[in-house]
Amino acid sequence: MPTTLLERFGHTVREQRLERHLSQEDLADLCCLHRTYISDIELGKRNVSLTNIDKVAIALGISLSGLFKEMEKSNETL
Amino acid sequence: MPTTLLERFGHTVREQRLERHLSQEDLADLCCLHRTYISDIELGKRNVSLTNIDKVAIALGISLSGLFKEMEKSNETL
Repeated sequence: MPTTLLERFGHTVREQRLERHLSQEDLADLCCLHRTYISDIELGKRNVSLTNIDKVAIALGISLSGLFKEMEKSNETL
Repeated sequence: MPTTLLERFGHTVREQRLERHLSQEDLADLCCLHRTYISDIELGKRNVSLTNIDKVAIALGISLSGLFKEMEKSNETL
């Protein structure tokens, strides 16, 4: 169960990626980031910078507010 | 006029801080960050990490989605 902020963010990225039927590699390609970096984000191992959060959101086709809204929603159900 | 993502984010933090009648020093104290770091954020000079974005949002009493919603709103009016 994700508990820290970074884990909750990573969990949300993973959920949104899977909803779009994207592999980590697909998302990495769309973001121009490395697949292992995406994997680290999803595991909550990276304190992602704003510009990289934005790249991920753009690749997922979601606004930054929308992405964090999803995180907050999924937090409410924990 | 803020143009880059980091400038737009900084501009939003500044607007939200001023709405709450806080000085940069007040906000810095609330966030446990340095005043010059807050100044740099507001000027779009820092690629803020997720944990520091969260500290700023908590200090401003706004959710992460709410903070980015404000940024997106202010972007629409540019």
